[in-house]
Amino acid sequence: MSRETPATRSDFKVWRTFSTRWADNDAYGHVNNTVYSAWFDSAVNGWMVEQGLLDIKNGDPIALVIETRCTYFAPLEFPQDVQVGLAVAELGKSSIRYRIGVFGGTDVAAAQGEFVHVVVDRETRRPVEIPADWRGKLEAIS
Amino acid sequence: MSRETPATRSDFKVWRTFSTRWADNDAYGHVNNTVYSAWFDSAVNGWMVEQGLLDIKNGDPIALVIETRCTYFAPLEFPQDVQVGLAVAELGKSSIRYRIGVFGGTDVAAAQGEFVHVVVDRETRRPVEIPADWRGKLEAIS
Amino acid sequence: MSRETPATRSDFKVWRTFSTRWADNDAYGHVNNTVYSAWFDSAVNGWMVEQGLLDIKNGDPIALVIETRCTYFAPLEFPQDVQVGLAVAELGKSSIRYRIGVFGGTDVAAAQGEFVHVVVDRETRRPVEIPADWRGKLEAIS
Amino acid sequence: MSRETPATRSDFKVWRTFSTRWADNDAYGHVNNTVYSAWFDSAVNGWMVEQGLLDIKNGDPIALVIETRCTYFAPLEFPQDVQVGLAVAELGKSSIRYRIGVFGGTDVAAAQGEFVHVVVDRETRRPVEIPADWRGKLEAIS
Repeated sequence: MSRETPATRSDFKVWRTFSTRWADNDAYGHVNNTVYSAWFDSAVNGWMVEQGLLDIKNGDPIALVIETRCTYFAPLEFPQDVQVGLAVAELGKSSIRYRIGVFGGTDVAAAQGEFVHVVVDRETRRPVEIPADWRGKLEAIS
Repeated sequence: MSRETPATRSDFKVWRTFSTRWADNDAYGHVNNTVYSAWFDSAVNGWMVEQGLLDIKNGDPIALVIETRCTYFAPLEFPQDVQVGLAVAELGKSSIRYRIGVFGGTDVAAAQGEFVHVVVDRETRRPVEIPADWRGKLEAIS
Repeated sequence: MSRETPATRSDFKVWRTFSTRWADNDAYGHVNNTVYSAWFDSAVNGWMVEQGLLDIKNGDPIALVIETRCTYFAPLEFPQDVQVGLAVAELGKSSIRYRIGVFGGTDVAAAQGEFVHVVVDRETRRPVEIPADWRGKLEAIS
Repeated sequence: MSRETPATRSDFKVWRTFSTRWADNDAYGHVNNTVYSAWFDSAVNGWMVEQGLLDIKNGDPIALVIETRCTYFAPLEFPQDVQVGLAVAELGKSSIRYRIGVFGGTDVAAAQGEFVHVVVDRETRRPVEIPADWRGKLEAIS
């Protein structure tokens, strides 16, 4: 099965740093793959909160994950920190495809993937059009 | 962006049941996407341990995750149980691509995806050929 | 430092079973202590939902954790299942102290502890008196 | 039931900062109590690795958790960072009791507790005497 080429830092537009936790290391002594999902989610939503787009408790619309994908190249280990790079890969009418890279100490991604949000009405959880202010900020990191 | 069609239970060969946990529900009140990764990993490795293929502490070879993919169709919520179905989608020289479905109470998958293991030497963590006994049991759930 | 004596199954009134997950095993190859906290929370809240006391999304009051304590006696390991036993140790005006035991395959607790809930108004998050129907069901497992 | 008084930053000797993750917020919109356990573990072990006392993969002895305790005073929420303060409360022949405080943006602990490590032989997992170099560094943060 063929494999992707690891991204480099220049492939991403905005960055967030995450600490690792003792419990992240699994029985094989490296950060378990589920933790990368947690970083994807945290990078995207943390950026959205910081940009004033998402209000987790009361905001409307909200964004739900409908698809994730990750390829792992090199192990990471507690207690190191990681940098997660983010860029918008594709903007639909109500969906956002993010390109994400996870980096340890080097310029080559330890893992990379995609994360797709669908923007929904908070109550009905049905898709709505991406609001104009969201679209502007999302295009800026495309 | 086009979306996949949800699988049904007949698309999978072996099953494992998992309990949800209070902490699985995130701020939106449903099981967070990272938990599905944990189920994928647990379904595959749990089956391998049960089949006598994997000895987590001392066995050699071991299998490391190199790729995951998941599409989410319907929310799940603590305290419900989930059933995770498993089948082998593709067998390479040293890699195994699993097809996985997560089911709540219905015959239609709440989420589905793929999970790719590469079989490696425990110490060097370099790929090795899938052992014959592994291959036999993996082909049986293809 | 002196240590507690492990409880036995007869010390608890109601039971819930939880599956372990691959990611629960930490770098030392056993279930990490944080997972026990997740089981405590899940056992108590799962029982409350089942008894019709707690409606996670809309109910009022809700119960928040204000104190936890756990002593660990013996390791547990994915992929085994665990049984978690529960009993009410003390009922205050608005607080509930639960006694909890975690069991693997034996009659002797692998870990045990306490978990204290304070019952609060959903919106203000200020303590309220334990409702009569809650008190009845809680006394029944004292 | 009486409650403890929250600690202040001056009650602790060394500090570590942790990022929160989206999945940390539970159904009630605040960081779930299990995450505090993860921070306790990470603060203690991270400090031990940094001090050259603990080599997670190959070191001998290692330290296992035998007791944890936490009292929660105020909610924390993703995406905020937290500071975790650490001090040694008691040193036994083979056990170490740490005092830990979790702080958001204020000088008053959002949560505090204790975490007890027993120092064990890596293979037999039986208690051994705390090594002299460990004891020296542990006394320095008492």
